[in-house]
Amino acid sequence: MSADFQVVHTCRGSKARAGELHTPHGMVPTPVFLPVGSQATVKTLTPDELKGIGVTMVLANTYHLYLRPGVQVIERMGGLHRFMGWDGAILTDSGGYQVFSLAPLRQVTDEGVVFRSHIDGSQHFITPELAVQFQEALGADVIMVLDECPAHDDSFDRVQEATRRTHRWAERCKQAHRRPDQALYAIVQGGMFPRLRQESARYLASLGFSGYAVGGLSLGEPKQVTLAMVEETVALLPEDKPRYLMGVGSPEDLVEGVARGIDIFDCALPTRVARNGALFTWQGRVNIRNAAYSQVDGPAVPGCDCYTCRTFSAAYVNHLFNCQELLAYRLATIHNLSFISGLMRKIRSVILDGAFKSFREDFMAAYRPTDEQVRLSQKQKWLRSRGGIVQ
Amino acid sequence: MSADFQVVHTCRGSKARAGELHTPHGMVPTPVFLPVGSQATVKTLTPDELKGIGVTMVLANTYHLYLRPGVQVIERMGGLHRFMGWDGAILTDSGGYQVFSLAPLRQVTDEGVVFRSHIDGSQHFITPELAVQFQEALGADVIMVLDECPAHDDSFDRVQEATRRTHRWAERCKQAHRRPDQALYAIVQGGMFPRLRQESARYLASLGFSGYAVGGLSLGEPKQVTLAMVEETVALLPEDKPRYLMGVGSPEDLVEGVARGIDIFDCALPTRVARNGALFTWQGRVNIRNAAYSQVDGPAVPGCDCYTCRTFSAAYVNHLFNCQELLAYRLATIHNLSFISGLMRKIRSVILDGAFKSFREDFMAAYRPTDEQVRLSQKQKWLRSRGGIVQ
Repeated sequence: MSADFQVVHTCRGSKARAGELHTPHGMVPTPVFLPVGSQATVKTLTPDELKGIGVTMVLANTYHLYLRPGVQVIERMGGLHRFMGWDGAILTDSGGYQVFSLAPLRQVTDEGVVFRSHIDGSQHFITPELAVQFQEALGADVIMVLDECPAHDDSFDRVQEATRRTHRWAERCKQAHRRPDQALYAIVQGGMFPRLRQESARYLASLGFSGYAVGGLSLGEPKQVTLAMVEETVALLPEDKPRYLMGVGSPEDLVEGVARGIDIFDCALPTRVARNGALFTWQGRVNIRNAAYSQVDGPAVPGCDCYTCRTFSAAYVNHLFNCQELLAYRLATIHNLSFISGLMRKIRSVILDGAFKSFREDFMAAYRPTDEQVRLSQKQKWLRSRGGIVQ
Repeated sequence: MSADFQVVHTCRGSKARAGELHTPHGMVPTPVFLPVGSQATVKTLTPDELKGIGVTMVLANTYHLYLRPGVQVIERMGGLHRFMGWDGAILTDSGGYQVFSLAPLRQVTDEGVVFRSHIDGSQHFITPELAVQFQEALGADVIMVLDECPAHDDSFDRVQEATRRTHRWAERCKQAHRRPDQALYAIVQGGMFPRLRQESARYLASLGFSGYAVGGLSLGEPKQVTLAMVEETVALLPEDKPRYLMGVGSPEDLVEGVARGIDIFDCALPTRVARNGALFTWQGRVNIRNAAYSQVDGPAVPGCDCYTCRTFSAAYVNHLFNCQELLAYRLATIHNLSFISGLMRKIRSVILDGAFKSFREDFMAAYRPTDEQVRLSQKQKWLRSRGGIVQ
């Protein structure tokens, strides 16, 4: 059985929807957030802890696993689930994004991409067929087509070229795909150009995939542009297939993504900022490294029922960060993933209750992104660089 | 109730003994190994995991906690047990050893030690009275006197001076000690000089402490010298009080220490070498970073029933180390502490069964310390530096 999807409920007055993604490793209630386990581990945590947090599906990266320990090693060990001791669902990224963001000295042709490893500089060649073959060997429940991911400030011509190549590669991935127990999702590209996004969504939808991802976003462009591109894309995707917004996962983005009809998200942000001491709260992020926390006897986030906040004081977590103790990164990761997991459960429940609209308003009124200033300056810089083309 | 000790069984033909250390935080069966949690955390692990491994007592360092987060912070948080979320027993070192090994620019007088923080260079002053006061504020079940710890290659005169100062300080600590729920242990010094060890053991025993530690060993001197000094010391300590060998904790040293009448051990080695990939087995250490493990589908240590070996393949743990994933350090720590915990339980059980002698022989025959070569060259270097004084 490959990953099968049903929409259970759609909101009135919004595109938000609740669904069920049935996979060989359990039913995943959607909307869902996938913690990132690029190297077959969600950093600092065991599979048991992920289960305890309520995680049902994780993401792993073909690029990373191809380089280390190698796809064949994992295949010989019985596949990725067994290798990492995780019996929940897994989605693997094809490696396209990593090849275009991490690997130096890449050369793209229609045939595929030559790239060098960011670890040891060794040269490798990947094609759409190989990307599928690698992912079939890894054995995830959902696998992704190989795509070419342009930079957020590439020219229209450059993005058009990459988008059309992505389409040809998607066809080849579909042709190469053999395992009936794995679902293959396409990736919509098109950069920040509505016309290309539309072309991409229409074309890929016409090929018929088990699911559709929106790729190439949240790469430094302003938040409003990201959301506008999501809207352009989702409008042209089939209603009955899952929609996956790649690389997006701050609390406010999850709420806004769901409001635009997204079912699946993945992002390294919640776990990455945790290791910097940033903890999510319903009012925004706080940083537990702040000296004021060294005197706080209560939990880091009052009212939070995660293991970290139930068990330790803010002062203790602050002390661990202050001493760069490894337990610090773990406790903060547990908090942030528990927060996001709780947020997604809450979102699904208010969708089912028909109360998503008011939840979204309340959430967005209370939630203050702490990096507003950073974003504002990013946006200004970006608009300058584009000559104000996209608003 | 302060920590109270009973010898339950003593071996015939060896000094090994099984006991019970009763503390306000539970009964600790001895012989016992204390994992090191210098900064109020056994690196990478939660208190729940320590419990799961079978740990009953941990060590924390007054020196580290005095500098960060500060003794008063922990006192205001209700003491060390509550601060670190650990309801088992705790022993705090006085900070003497750390002042003499970590802190630069120290000045020792009879009054106390002026030292600089190894973190920020700030200047501090500690006296025997303050060491007790700090430890009473931290609230461990067992606390230690402030001692002066000479280097392993100091001259007789220098070691004699430090040893006698340690005696005067021990008396002052005893005078200053107020909390009846905490046991205060003395520390025998005397360097590598049997005469001074004997003098120190006799003098401190005459003062009457709740327990006696053997300090100033395992600082680079050859293993045979360490064990000879333990023998000299233990022979003169009261039978009915616990004996604690500080800073010693490799598997072979634990067996040999127990054979010489030691009840309590602490050491950073099992957790520190774990973070370097060295895993204990009944045959010696193996290093999981070794490339050969990348192809091993079975557990890192066959037959081991720890969480790591039960749950993951050697190939997976090897992969995590290879990628420097934080989970690697945690899984290896769990394995080594589980091994040591199992070893101590086994030792206690064979003592109670009257089978320690044959267990020791079998263990030492099978166990091959992997750093034999390193030790041999250390010993030769050391003997040269001492002109062969101690054999």
